[in-house]
Amino acid sequence: MTKKTAVILLSGGLDSATCLAMARDQGFRTLAISFRYGQRHAVELAASQRVAKALGADRHQIVDIDLRAFGGSALTADIDVPKDRPEAELESGVPITYVPARNTIFLSFALALAEVEDAADIFIGVNAVDYSGYPDCRPEFVAAFEAMANLATKASAVDGRKLTIHAPLMHLTKADIIRTGRKLGVDYGLTISCYDPTPAGESCGHCDSCQLRKKGFADAGVPDPTRYA
Amino acid sequence: MTKKTAVILLSGGLDSATCLAMARDQGFRTLAISFRYGQRHAVELAASQRVAKALGADRHQIVDIDLRAFGGSALTADIDVPKDRPEAELESGVPITYVPARNTIFLSFALALAEVEDAADIFIGVNAVDYSGYPDCRPEFVAAFEAMANLATKASAVDGRKLTIHAPLMHLTKADIIRTGRKLGVDYGLTISCYDPTPAGESCGHCDSCQLRKKGFADAGVPDPTRYA
Repeated sequence: MTKKTAVILLSGGLDSATCLAMARDQGFRTLAISFRYGQRHAVELAASQRVAKALGADRHQIVDIDLRAFGGSALTADIDVPKDRPEAELESGVPITYVPARNTIFLSFALALAEVEDAADIFIGVNAVDYSGYPDCRPEFVAAFEAMANLATKASAVDGRKLTIHAPLMHLTKADIIRTGRKLGVDYGLTISCYDPTPAGESCGHCDSCQLRKKGFADAGVPDPTRYA
Repeated sequence: MTKKTAVILLSGGLDSATCLAMARDQGFRTLAISFRYGQRHAVELAASQRVAKALGADRHQIVDIDLRAFGGSALTADIDVPKDRPEAELESGVPITYVPARNTIFLSFALALAEVEDAADIFIGVNAVDYSGYPDCRPEFVAAFEAMANLATKASAVDGRKLTIHAPLMHLTKADIIRTGRKLGVDYGLTISCYDPTPAGESCGHCDSCQLRKKGFADAGVPDPTRYA
């Protein structure tokens, strides 16, 4: 029997690495896709390459897109990444690190790749529990994208192939994600979550993403393999 | 009173030029956006620049994206553009010139730009009457994209700004589109619709798009300003 193919959005972070491992575990042939989008933290692309290789992705593709043309985020423009925000603040509002329409754009490219590769499944590691308050990480967004995608392509709208957007981390805590990935052999030392890492790939330890990650390892009772600056 | 801002997807073709003129006529400040997406017919980008200038767009931006990485279309890959297809065939099925998920990707970038520019309106010149059978040109696709977009961004999902995708050509014939544009001062001699033009910008006269365009001018009783090879 031929394996079904899935497209996996891979950032080099902890969540998408876990997602890739889950898709592999479910028996999919895995096509990982990452984006060079003008992010400050380009070391995450190096991490995505390490992760794709270590987890045995069948292919890994990096696509260039220029979101900097639009500015508007601390992740792509010359705005400082906030550090050491108190936990209460992490849970309120959309932070300055929000990149306009990022997941919509990433999923759109994944949709194109899925159609060309005869894939009916896309995996995205978004999470609505221990997350950073981004609107495009919520279940209602994922459901609406899936509905749109099923009307958008020849594969779905004409040939009747149902496309599914999998967001298997949606309702897991960061600790649950880490436990799941460890069972599937994910080496989190290869991943990087920091919004403001050093050029050598060390994490700052103080941005929102580092804080969530640290807490995840602590809650899971797992040693944190992250290299902090 | 400050003008409301709209983002206009501008291809350099007849339809999107008309769309831009309609948005201007409705009083919007117009931000036109075009894409260099590995299309064979790069002369369309030159046309988009002429059109944006002639119609007085407040800004025009060309964004680089690489859809060639995915292959899969006669518009981006090394596949011949079909010529002189009989009219009955034009109306059946999705042609080889279909680019996977193209309008989804274009609208996603427009959505990012809209959010950054505080725009609540996006114009796209898709058409379900005299069209080429692309699934992402249908009203149900546009409605689904709009629903998704309203859940995707901080502007809509958090700040409550309703985003509208305008597709004012959806139910017009090509002849109606031409009549509408002429009333609004569109110089169709600046536009190019051909899928396979010469490097000098002459149209082939035989691809699906040229055939639809020729018929539109004939039906409208308007002289066709197109330079054919």
